[in-house]
Amino acid sequence: MAERGIGIGLIGLGTIGTGVVKVLQRNAAVIEQRLGFPLRVVRVADLDTETDRGVDLSSVRFDSDADGLIADPDVSIVIELIGGYDIAKRYTLAAIAAGKHVVTANKALLALHGAEIFGAAQRAGVDVGFEASVAGGIPILRSIREGLVANRIESLHGIMNGTTNYVLTQMESTGEAQEVVVKRAQDLGYAEADPTFDLEGVDAAHKLTLLAAMAFGAELTFKEIPTEGISGLAPVDFEAADEFGYRIKLLGIAKSHVDAGGAERIEARVHPTLIPKSSLLASVDGAMNAVAVTGDAVGPTLFYGAGAGELPTASAVVADLVEIAREIDRGGAGRVAPLSYLPDALRPVPLVPLGEISGRAYLRFTALDRAGVLGHIAGALGEHGIGIESVIQKGRGGEGDSVPVLVLTHPAQESALRAALERIDALPDVTAPTRLVRIEEGL
Amino acid sequence: MAERGIGIGLIGLGTIGTGVVKVLQRNAAVIEQRLGFPLRVVRVADLDTETDRGVDLSSVRFDSDADGLIADPDVSIVIELIGGYDIAKRYTLAAIAAGKHVVTANKALLALHGAEIFGAAQRAGVDVGFEASVAGGIPILRSIREGLVANRIESLHGIMNGTTNYVLTQMESTGEAQEVVVKRAQDLGYAEADPTFDLEGVDAAHKLTLLAAMAFGAELTFKEIPTEGISGLAPVDFEAADEFGYRIKLLGIAKSHVDAGGAERIEARVHPTLIPKSSLLASVDGAMNAVAVTGDAVGPTLFYGAGAGELPTASAVVADLVEIAREIDRGGAGRVAPLSYLPDALRPVPLVPLGEISGRAYLRFTALDRAGVLGHIAGALGEHGIGIESVIQKGRGGEGDSVPVLVLTHPAQESALRAALERIDALPDVTAPTRLVRIEEGL
Repeated sequence: MAERGIGIGLIGLGTIGTGVVKVLQRNAAVIEQRLGFPLRVVRVADLDTETDRGVDLSSVRFDSDADGLIADPDVSIVIELIGGYDIAKRYTLAAIAAGKHVVTANKALLALHGAEIFGAAQRAGVDVGFEASVAGGIPILRSIREGLVANRIESLHGIMNGTTNYVLTQMESTGEAQEVVVKRAQDLGYAEADPTFDLEGVDAAHKLTLLAAMAFGAELTFKEIPTEGISGLAPVDFEAADEFGYRIKLLGIAKSHVDAGGAERIEARVHPTLIPKSSLLASVDGAMNAVAVTGDAVGPTLFYGAGAGELPTASAVVADLVEIAREIDRGGAGRVAPLSYLPDALRPVPLVPLGEISGRAYLRFTALDRAGVLGHIAGALGEHGIGIESVIQKGRGGEGDSVPVLVLTHPAQESALRAALERIDALPDVTAPTRLVRIEEGL
Repeated sequence: MAERGIGIGLIGLGTIGTGVVKVLQRNAAVIEQRLGFPLRVVRVADLDTETDRGVDLSSVRFDSDADGLIADPDVSIVIELIGGYDIAKRYTLAAIAAGKHVVTANKALLALHGAEIFGAAQRAGVDVGFEASVAGGIPILRSIREGLVANRIESLHGIMNGTTNYVLTQMESTGEAQEVVVKRAQDLGYAEADPTFDLEGVDAAHKLTLLAAMAFGAELTFKEIPTEGISGLAPVDFEAADEFGYRIKLLGIAKSHVDAGGAERIEARVHPTLIPKSSLLASVDGAMNAVAVTGDAVGPTLFYGAGAGELPTASAVVADLVEIAREIDRGGAGRVAPLSYLPDALRPVPLVPLGEISGRAYLRFTALDRAGVLGHIAGALGEHGIGIESVIQKGRGGEGDSVPVLVLTHPAQESALRAALERIDALPDVTAPTRLVRIEEGL
């Protein structure tokens, strides 16, 4: 084996799959200097066997037979890069059943079916690597699992979706409307033809589900994580955030809450967030990702890098290949539990209801440009115990025009905020639903 | 063994050693939920067995007998936290010779004697963990060794000394002189009684030696790395850097240079550096550390966290304990080469001479406040092909007074700069040696 190397089968020769082949080919020498033997792609399966991907596959069996690839005795590690749920799940479980280790970038699959897949892998004595599924090239999973293993993790704050971060950064710098920026992101390849999963925070919530399991040992149900996307953010929100000293980022946030009796609940949510300009996360621009992790011993940490793209994602896939190849070479598997906690230490943990969460908030009211409107808004907020820290009233419209009223509140509980907004949105002078953006401090 | 856990012996119960005991005690449950069995400190050796460190050592044998600790059959992993060279080296080699795994935070020892220690460990079939030796709690060594293993590393830029970063940040924000800030850092425990190793860049150069080996497979001789400390930086330098759009950080920098024929040389240096305010590294304040790593596949990455301190450093020590304990449990060692490259792939690589390095530079001239001085300076720079991009001349002194003349150059080779400065410093109007601070762009 040490002569021949470890045989790898790749299912899905799209952007990332092609990147994996490129990285394994061009960095073969340096990888072998670190690993001691070569990694060899012996077989590739894709429905499209015609398109030229610009990589040399002359020594590789390349066809559309994924089942044959899985069964091939020369294949020790199967890379699943087709994405989606059903077929990806079938191939992943088939590979595990065939005694093959699996490497995947499929966060959607693992967020929904992780327990089943990891359980099957454990029983079969094989490993599942998924570093590429969260934050692309950033080695965040390894860092939580091993680098920070000594810590009780207290909180996570992640910019984990490059598409939305690109859109937010562009909206902020150009003042353009969201649809204009999304169109450009699509033209540049930063956004999919249907970008809903990205823009609505679903992709970030998939990743947060995995990170929260690894950080807290908490089995969260992806669908229960409060998730709000960036649609509805307008150029005026970025101007106001700037004036208030903040930038707007789509964050995945997870925190551990332990009560006096030792009972733990997890706060987990995905939404656009105002964060102080001075925080490192605020400086993460364009399609880059970053995850801030605070541990009880290490304190605040941050991991930054490209969250997507052909070669950065391939970097993470190949890191998993190398780790698994070391295990195969040593005759082992299961060195580290995939979700950091051993399977029997993972447990369902209740979520903190969103209404209980406290913090300052940014509110964009849309109201008729009349004397007294701010008084009505402030009155309704006050009745719910919510103080106003700062107000920006943008240029006056004509009689009968609506104008934005931009408010920064003092810390308040979300349930109180929601009740106040319900009141306010029913006021005759308020002409559109109020936009709430939560604020995270202390990053 | 799985019942009893892995036995650990700790030599050196100072700040970090005490932190290790604290972390192992308070996070015992969560560590066991991840590892599957406990880590037990069974023995501690320190010359001072009297001082109360505020940790419970009732179930631990605590005396001054380090040799006895090493020989103790209940001890599987020896933590060396006494620092320094001679005694630390003796204990480390003795532990290895006794078949014990070693965890250390001693960057000085490894930068000078790493080859000997790693070689002995390999022959003895034991592991040496040293995550805590570089950038404290940041899992940077694991990230380079495993997370970025797929990459040809192109460059490293690290803020790796918390003491100097604290001093620089404070000088910048308060405008105070360096000796005032250093005194305060000593009072706060951020600086040692003799802070020379920190302030003169020696500590950062130790760490850079280790990182360069891991990133490039390059055996560098620590003493050959051009190293310049922060002494000599004055408040006016921070003001000027700010006006020019930069902040000043003590960076360890290493880059791989491969010529057309494939021959590799390494650029490695430690010195105060002007970096653009917009870079993430520029936002790393106080005693925090960060290492930016660029790989050919992953692109730019950054790892941020506390670079020193009791618990952050303990976090890294315990991460190594857990990794080694997994190996002991599985009956293995040497899973990953300590310097990332397998021993026979490590090789001496020539350093790029400092004179060949090109970039823009900040120059603080000290000259008599006379008409024509700037002309003489500009003339001497121009004769060596060095263009001036920007000049700040601070407030006029009286006749015969010296004033700073602050210059930002266009990109120039260091040898040309040095030749020009030699010329300029000999001018009759120039009353003190010119201070050169190099600039790194593109971070």
